[in-house]
Amino acid sequence: MIDVMVAGIGQTPVGEHWDISLHTLATKAILQAGRDAGGLKPDAMYIGNYLASVVSHQSNLGALLAEHAGLTGIEAYTIEAADASGAAAFRNGYMAVASGYVDTAVVVGVEKYTDLVGPKSDSTLAQATDYDYEAVPGLTPAAQAGMLMQRYLYDYGIEKEVLAGFPILAHANAVHNPNAMYHKPITAEAYRKSPMVCSPLNTLDMAPYADGAAAVVLTRRDLLCGEDCGPTIKISGSSVVIDTLALHDRHDMLAFRAAGISLDRACRKAGILPGEVDFLELSDNFSIYAVLALESGGFANRGEGWKLALDGDLNLNGRMPVCTMGGLKGRGHPIGASGVYQIVEAVQQLRGQAGRNQIPNPKRALVQSLGGPASTAITHVLERID
Amino acid sequence: MIDVMVAGIGQTPVGEHWDISLHTLATKAILQAGRDAGGLKPDAMYIGNYLASVVSHQSNLGALLAEHAGLTGIEAYTIEAADASGAAAFRNGYMAVASGYVDTAVVVGVEKYTDLVGPKSDSTLAQATDYDYEAVPGLTPAAQAGMLMQRYLYDYGIEKEVLAGFPILAHANAVHNPNAMYHKPITAEAYRKSPMVCSPLNTLDMAPYADGAAAVVLTRRDLLCGEDCGPTIKISGSSVVIDTLALHDRHDMLAFRAAGISLDRACRKAGILPGEVDFLELSDNFSIYAVLALESGGFANRGEGWKLALDGDLNLNGRMPVCTMGGLKGRGHPIGASGVYQIVEAVQQLRGQAGRNQIPNPKRALVQSLGGPASTAITHVLERID
Repeated sequence: MIDVMVAGIGQTPVGEHWDISLHTLATKAILQAGRDAGGLKPDAMYIGNYLASVVSHQSNLGALLAEHAGLTGIEAYTIEAADASGAAAFRNGYMAVASGYVDTAVVVGVEKYTDLVGPKSDSTLAQATDYDYEAVPGLTPAAQAGMLMQRYLYDYGIEKEVLAGFPILAHANAVHNPNAMYHKPITAEAYRKSPMVCSPLNTLDMAPYADGAAAVVLTRRDLLCGEDCGPTIKISGSSVVIDTLALHDRHDMLAFRAAGISLDRACRKAGILPGEVDFLELSDNFSIYAVLALESGGFANRGEGWKLALDGDLNLNGRMPVCTMGGLKGRGHPIGASGVYQIVEAVQQLRGQAGRNQIPNPKRALVQSLGGPASTAITHVLERID
Repeated sequence: MIDVMVAGIGQTPVGEHWDISLHTLATKAILQAGRDAGGLKPDAMYIGNYLASVVSHQSNLGALLAEHAGLTGIEAYTIEAADASGAAAFRNGYMAVASGYVDTAVVVGVEKYTDLVGPKSDSTLAQATDYDYEAVPGLTPAAQAGMLMQRYLYDYGIEKEVLAGFPILAHANAVHNPNAMYHKPITAEAYRKSPMVCSPLNTLDMAPYADGAAAVVLTRRDLLCGEDCGPTIKISGSSVVIDTLALHDRHDMLAFRAAGISLDRACRKAGILPGEVDFLELSDNFSIYAVLALESGGFANRGEGWKLALDGDLNLNGRMPVCTMGGLKGRGHPIGASGVYQIVEAVQQLRGQAGRNQIPNPKRALVQSLGGPASTAITHVLERID
C-alpha cells in the first residue's frame, strides 16, 4: 500500500449561494485546492454529493465537474452516503491513491441545498432515513434526532439545557472562521429560548442545512510539491462502518455502534489510541449526535458525554478540542460537502493555518462523519509528519 | 497491487418489478452472488444506482442494503455515473480489493425505474445530460441520441435502415436469456415500422428503461472457494474516462473519444490488444451508441461501424460477438444496474454458463459501459485463467 498525503485544500464560504450554480461552486473549491497543491494535476475526481439529482436535477456530476474544472480525460464519479457523502468520497480517493491505480485524486464535496424550499425540503431530507418504515410515517432526520434526545434525557434523568454546551462551543469557534455561515456567539439563554423543532430538540440543536463546496487533493509522497506547500499531512487511518438504517432495528439506539467501531478501526490502522489525537472534528449536525459520538468513541462514559462540553474540555484550549472551526452547527452543514469541510479544517489546524482558531502545534487529528444517526460512520486519522 | 477475481455472480430478471421494493430486489441479487461465491462474506459493498433518490425517495442505500442483506458492520456506499453507475461501482470494488484495504467486496447494481410514470420520467432521465444547457431547453437522452444519429446518417450519406442490425442482433440474443425482458426476435420490417421517438431515432433504436438488480462478489485469489466454484475469472484491466457532459462542447461529437481512450487504457493494463478479446459487452442503449463505440474502439473505420451488424460479424458465431445475452436493448436497461448485468453476463460466458447463448470456449471479455453519450466511459477486461 502506498502512503497517501494531502497535497492541497480548498473551500468556499458556507451559506446560501443562490447566485451561483452547483458546478461553479464546486469548481471554485477544486481550483483552489489545485493551486494549493502547487498545480498538481489530478487523474481522478471523486465527488461527494447528496442532493444534486433532487435539488438541481443534475446527475453524472463526474462528467459535469471534470469538464468545468478543465479536467476531461480523467476518471470521475459521484459517491453518496447521506450526510457522510463527502467523507465517503474522501475514503474513496484515499483507497484509489493507496492502490496505485491513481497517482493524484481530487476529492470534492459539493451541495446546493437552499434552492429547495417549503415542505419538499423536509421530505427530501427524509431520504436519508428508511423511506418505507421511517419517512413515510413522517420521520425526518430532525424528528429522529429529537427521539434520540428524548430517550437520552429520560434514560439518564437530565434536563435538556445541559446539551447547550455543544451549540455554544460550535458558534464560539465559528466566529473567526471566515468560511463559516455564522459569526455570532450564542448564549445559554438563547438556547433556552430557541424555538422548538421536534421536542425536545430546538433550533439551536440543529446544524443549518446550507450550500458549499470543499476540496482536497491527495497524492503519493514523491509527487508532493515540496516544502513550499507547507507541512506534510498523511492519512494514517481510514474506516467506513455501517449500522442499520432504521433506528427501530437497533438493540440500543443510544449506542451509535458504527461510530465507535469505525473510530476504533481507523485508530488501529493508524497505530494509535483515540486519546492520542490532538483534536476531533465530529458530526454535530444535532447536539445529541455529538454527545453520542463522544460516548461511542470512549471519550466519555455512557450518559456522561454532555459533561465534556460544560467542563471546557472541548474548547480550543481544552484537553480535547472538537469542531475547531465551528463544526456543522457553526460553520453550517452543506450536507454532502460537510465531510470534506471537516477534512479541510483538520488540515488547516495541522498546518498551522487556522488563524485565530489555531490550537497549539497539533500533530494528529481524528475526523468523523456520520450519515444519518450513525447509519454510516466514516473516520479518518490525519497526521503531520515533518 | 493484488489480483482481483470474480468469486460469485447473481441477477434478477429484468422487467417491471412493481411488486417488490428496491431493497428486496437488490438483496435477491446480493444473496444469489454470495451463494455463488460459496458463502464468502464481504467486508464492503459498493452500490451502483442512478435514480433511487428521485424514484424511491431513498438515499443512503449503503446502510439500507447492508442491513437487508444481513451485512451491518461492513463498509458500504453508493456510486453514481448515470447509465454507467453499475460499472463505476464495479471499478470501485476492483480498486478496493486491489488496494488490500478490502478482502472481499460485493458490487451490486440496482434500479427501480418503472414506478416513475408520465412526463416526470423524461425530465428525470434528462438529469444525465447537462441540466442548464441541455435538459432545460428540452433535450432528453433519446433526443440527444436522435441528434447523433441524424448527424451520422448525414455525414456518411446512409439510410437509417442500416442500423436495424443492432436491435435485431440484441433481440435475437435475448430470446434464450431467462433474465432478459424480451424473448421475441424482431425483423427489419418491424424496425422500419417502429414508431418514431426523436427523428430519426425510433422505438426499436432505444433500450427499454427497466427494473433489475445484479451483483458480483470480488476477492483475492487465495480467498476463492476452489474448483467447486467453477473457472477462475480475473479482472485484468479497468479504466474510467470522462468526456464533456454537454455534446456541444465537443469538437467532434461522433468521436466518442472517452469510449476509445477508456478501452485503450483497459487493454493496455491487461497487456492485450482490443482484437485479442473473444467477445464484447457494449452499451447499446441506443443503436447509434453501439455503432460509435465500435468505431471509437477501432473495431471499424469511422462511418463503417454499422456494417459489422449486417455482415454477421457480431453474432454469437461471428468474428467478434457483442451483447451476447441480449445487450441493453434485448435484456432491458435497468439504468444504474446495467453495468453490473454486463459484467455478470461476461462471467457467464467465460465460465461456460451462458446456456444456448454460449460462445465456444471464450477466454477473454471486454465490457464497456457508457454514462450519457460516452460522457463517462468505463471499460473492463475479464479473463478466464485455468
